[in-house]
Amino acid sequence: MVHFKARSLIFVLLLSFQAAAAFADPLPSWSNGPIKEAILQFVRGVTDKSGKDYVPESERIAVFDQDGTLWVEQPLYPQQYFALERIKEMSGKDPVQKKKQADDLEVKNDVKESEIEAIVSKIHAGMTIEDFQDAVKGWLQTARHPRYKRAFTDLVYEPMLEVIRLFKANGFKVYIVSGGGQEFMRSYAEKVYGIPPEQVIGTAGRVKYEYEGGVPVLRRKPAILFVDDKEGKPEAINLMVGRRPIAAFGNSDGDKQMLEWTGNNPGPHLEVLISHDDEHREYSYGADSKIGTFSEGLKTEAGLKGWKVVSMKKDWRRIFRWEGSSRPTGEGDRPRQG
Amino acid sequence: MVHFKARSLIFVLLLSFQAAAAFADPLPSWSNGPIKEAILQFVRGVTDKSGKDYVPESERIAVFDQDGTLWVEQPLYPQQYFALERIKEMSGKDPVQKKKQADDLEVKNDVKESEIEAIVSKIHAGMTIEDFQDAVKGWLQTARHPRYKRAFTDLVYEPMLEVIRLFKANGFKVYIVSGGGQEFMRSYAEKVYGIPPEQVIGTAGRVKYEYEGGVPVLRRKPAILFVDDKEGKPEAINLMVGRRPIAAFGNSDGDKQMLEWTGNNPGPHLEVLISHDDEHREYSYGADSKIGTFSEGLKTEAGLKGWKVVSMKKDWRRIFRWEGSSRPTGEGDRPRQG
Repeated sequence: MVHFKARSLIFVLLLSFQAAAAFADPLPSWSNGPIKEAILQFVRGVTDKSGKDYVPESERIAVFDQDGTLWVEQPLYPQQYFALERIKEMSGKDPVQKKKQADDLEVKNDVKESEIEAIVSKIHAGMTIEDFQDAVKGWLQTARHPRYKRAFTDLVYEPMLEVIRLFKANGFKVYIVSGGGQEFMRSYAEKVYGIPPEQVIGTAGRVKYEYEGGVPVLRRKPAILFVDDKEGKPEAINLMVGRRPIAAFGNSDGDKQMLEWTGNNPGPHLEVLISHDDEHREYSYGADSKIGTFSEGLKTEAGLKGWKVVSMKKDWRRIFRWEGSSRPTGEGDRPRQG
Repeated sequence: MVHFKARSLIFVLLLSFQAAAAFADPLPSWSNGPIKEAILQFVRGVTDKSGKDYVPESERIAVFDQDGTLWVEQPLYPQQYFALERIKEMSGKDPVQKKKQADDLEVKNDVKESEIEAIVSKIHAGMTIEDFQDAVKGWLQTARHPRYKRAFTDLVYEPMLEVIRLFKANGFKVYIVSGGGQEFMRSYAEKVYGIPPEQVIGTAGRVKYEYEGGVPVLRRKPAILFVDDKEGKPEAINLMVGRRPIAAFGNSDGDKQMLEWTGNNPGPHLEVLISHDDEHREYSYGADSKIGTFSEGLKTEAGLKGWKVVSMKKDWRRIFRWEGSSRPTGEGDRPRQG
């Protein structure tokens, strides 16, 4: 009888777990409200075989901008810090050129993501792709954000990780589509976002197939193959995916064309823009910012086209995984305004 | 009792089906021999979790050249016939230019796949990607091969479809990596090979994001973004996949670098070259051919590096799905030799 009771108990427990899982909130870091509901409803719609919004699994393509959409992009893009450190490390380089490159990255203050990749291409020319990715991985282990004093990969938005996981669990193929360097992102995207290299699209430097003692290597060239920003985003999606996305997430004018392209999908589609309006927990910036500009024109277009605009302040209960245990101190740099 | 007997019968039948499936030959169109055994052994090795050759599913990347590896490329590449027909159809075009383009495609007789895409780019400049793919689909429905009098998509090698299916069933992600036009192949690859557009890599024409009455469109430009041939193949694999393949199939000098790149994978890997030596059922060509050159140098390299060389004559029991019911007549063009 004891044996029977134990088995019954296990059975009841299993049922309870299943029930809990069925009712578990897949987006716990999101405040209840129209945006969270829109995301959940969209996923329910495209996966409901009997519904009018059903989309076959192979066509469930979702695209996410990275800087400012998946992780913190202020006061400088993480890739800018990487390039600045790499310039410092490079010994035997012309100091005048080093100073100029550092100035271009930092002082100019309105460098575009694609321009960063151009500088990264120049300072890493001749390096094999493996050595370059090792350099990025090494930098990520020691580099710290000036305000949060944490690794850049700790500054990933938890609510967005929840959306990525929800999409993946529902048969979506999730892509990053960023102005940042493709090879740079691929060195950590699988670990940090669970997104494999073949689903990471970014501004792409040229590489060249060469031999080193008879062994083939791919070496970086000091040139850009394509810029994955603005018009370049739908163009790169067509190049790399060959399908039109059904969901797109961004946060700036650089994402406008990607959202438009997704928004003109004849089937169901979802467009979301993140608005940085939380000075306390993150940063507050918008139309006048040089990094992550969210212009009045984009705001108007979002309103007209039914794109969802996320208020980080109101819609995100938690921004970072570690929040609560270690609050941002508020010290350090403030967002760069134009 | 009848009810019970029926259920027993169903149970026995199910067991038999399972047993049959377990012992079914996944490569029935291949002759038994060292090449077939090498492919089967490779798949067993990389999927055996307890073995030393195990490769995690995410790293099981296989790449296949198309022309001459997956379908017939003689006497001209299928894309050459497409371009020739499109030039004829284009009304209102300069007849002198039309004549020159047709000559470049046909009479010159040594046009490279990437040069075909350059001409295709020129004659389809301004077209949206959807209209272009519709044009390819329309052409495929009516175009017939001069010798076989069949649709080009009927001239796919059945043994290679079996390898693709075997790989997919074992968790591989299968890519086409071809010098042919990427957009051209994507219009039929899913239907013909079961390979989705995001896994089709080819010579890529430039596209431009534009508006047509406020609606975004992607239009083809008369320019090439990258050439996916020779060195361009590993370069494009790095761009589009970001992982090194563990299996590569090709048939010509244009695949040399892709096989070398795969062959230098530190883990288990498989390289296969198709040799066209079957004049009766297909074509016989090699070192002197302008299309699909298989040089003596490549043959030597294959021997030194342990690449498997498939004799279509000996290793393939069946080349086409329809073989036996409708044999090639032998009439029409012969393979072009240099």
